[in-house]
Amino acid sequence: MPGEFAFIHWLRQQQTASSAVPVPAGDDLAVLRWTDADLLLVGVDQVLDGVHFDSTVHSPGDIGRKVMNRNLSDCAAMACLPAGAVVSVALPQGCGDEYAKELYLGIKAAGEVFDCPIVGGDTGSWAGKLAVTVTILGRSAGIAPVTRKGAKVGDGLYVSGPLGGSILGRHMTFTPRVELARKLATGEDIHAMIDLSDGLSRDAGHIAAESGVGLVIEAATVPVHDDARTLSQRDGVAPIDHALHDGEDHELLAVLPPEAEAMALDLGMIRIGKVIEGQGVWLDHGGQRTAMPVRGWEHRL
Amino acid sequence: MPGEFAFIHWLRQQQTASSAVPVPAGDDLAVLRWTDADLLLVGVDQVLDGVHFDSTVHSPGDIGRKVMNRNLSDCAAMACLPAGAVVSVALPQGCGDEYAKELYLGIKAAGEVFDCPIVGGDTGSWAGKLAVTVTILGRSAGIAPVTRKGAKVGDGLYVSGPLGGSILGRHMTFTPRVELARKLATGEDIHAMIDLSDGLSRDAGHIAAESGVGLVIEAATVPVHDDARTLSQRDGVAPIDHALHDGEDHELLAVLPPEAEAMALDLGMIRIGKVIEGQGVWLDHGGQRTAMPVRGWEHRL
Repeated sequence: MPGEFAFIHWLRQQQTASSAVPVPAGDDLAVLRWTDADLLLVGVDQVLDGVHFDSTVHSPGDIGRKVMNRNLSDCAAMACLPAGAVVSVALPQGCGDEYAKELYLGIKAAGEVFDCPIVGGDTGSWAGKLAVTVTILGRSAGIAPVTRKGAKVGDGLYVSGPLGGSILGRHMTFTPRVELARKLATGEDIHAMIDLSDGLSRDAGHIAAESGVGLVIEAATVPVHDDARTLSQRDGVAPIDHALHDGEDHELLAVLPPEAEAMALDLGMIRIGKVIEGQGVWLDHGGQRTAMPVRGWEHRL
Repeated sequence: MPGEFAFIHWLRQQQTASSAVPVPAGDDLAVLRWTDADLLLVGVDQVLDGVHFDSTVHSPGDIGRKVMNRNLSDCAAMACLPAGAVVSVALPQGCGDEYAKELYLGIKAAGEVFDCPIVGGDTGSWAGKLAVTVTILGRSAGIAPVTRKGAKVGDGLYVSGPLGGSILGRHMTFTPRVELARKLATGEDIHAMIDLSDGLSRDAGHIAAESGVGLVIEAATVPVHDDARTLSQRDGVAPIDHALHDGEDHELLAVLPPEAEAMALDLGMIRIGKVIEGQGVWLDHGGQRTAMPVRGWEHRL
């Protein structure tokens, strides 16, 4: 039964040096260099056993990759460059240090894809279930942060890939759209963006509410993932409803003006609707508009 | 049974505007301004039910204050100014939104004492126990970050207050020594510092290891808190042993050169020992030196 300090010693051996991190983990806080030119973006996302993963099914490495990738996807949503992360882990007592190491290596591997080192952390054990929290720091790096506020009447709505049925496995293995987001936001033509974590219907609602506009989604144009069809055969729910309401796709939903349409399509974005006057989200089924039912994920308190 | 989004709406109403936070919580990430002159310090500390607090005993407001104050104490350890925090909360299902709000208000109130706003967060509920994680951002603000590495032979060791027996209540109600730390570090006379979270014996060991020196603590000079005496009457452990080994005092342990001694004493610091050649921590009992037993807190994995 190894202890926290042996584990911390191991953690520190995993760190790679960086000129941007003059004081790495090992003190009470890590120290990072920042510049006037770079805005600092910061956010946090946790994953909880039984909610975001199932520790009896998913490996610690996959759990670690998921929590880091959720945070990297938040960077994509704002079109910033991931710069570093701190990690907090509540381990079930007796899980063993091999489990903790695999979890950590999963987090680290996901971050390394985007040059995002782990710069600090807190590890504890308890008589509870596994909870992992990652806080991510991002740099604006020459691109103004893209928010949910800025959609304008006449803009188009675009998604970066097929949706629905992520629960079949993609919710653990998705790729954060960091590079795509940076390309979409170059030139500052982009008006608003979000990553689809709560489900298209709910996340579109966030953009509508923040921007004070209405959004129309044309059902026939929404790309439906094969997983949504597979799931439909099992549960009888229409594939399009999975695409509209399932969570954890982690594709981008971007709002772009007409002059940016060619660029967006060139980058592989799929147009699914437009911004109109009003407030809320509508679904257009062959010309019939109805208020979008909101069924995406929401935690109950 | 209110939901996550109603709670987030309430959270956003609690936020205060700040010129340093051009994009507050409400997007995927918050945005902060930073300058060339300021190094960014970042760290994370979590509190877990049954380890750092007992949800059947402590109020959600006290739990919130504790987790923020632990992070503020980390800022004190490095002598930086708290600048902002993000919060991640895993709530037991059915705890209710009043409980969540009291928890949040406790975190916020503790931060406000040091002008440290909550700039973002993640709230979830699960079939698990309460876990709260705060990530803190600090600014160097004209003072080089103080680390654990820098103690030199001949330096003095100082603590900022009486130690031991914090479990009787102080572990929930301590005051982070942010202002004192800034004063101690002005002029850069300070060589090393840590906040006493794991216990004096263990935290002194961290400084010894990082600095590559030996530390001698003179038992007769260690300030013993009244709580350590009270606890001694209950458990028969000597008060000095509580002072040396109990965790969560959150006083500062500072290492200063001889020329800074008068300044340290003026600021109310108490001298408890010195830095010698060698490696490790020794306890001096009336001239008799023995290796310091290490009994402070350590999580078992």
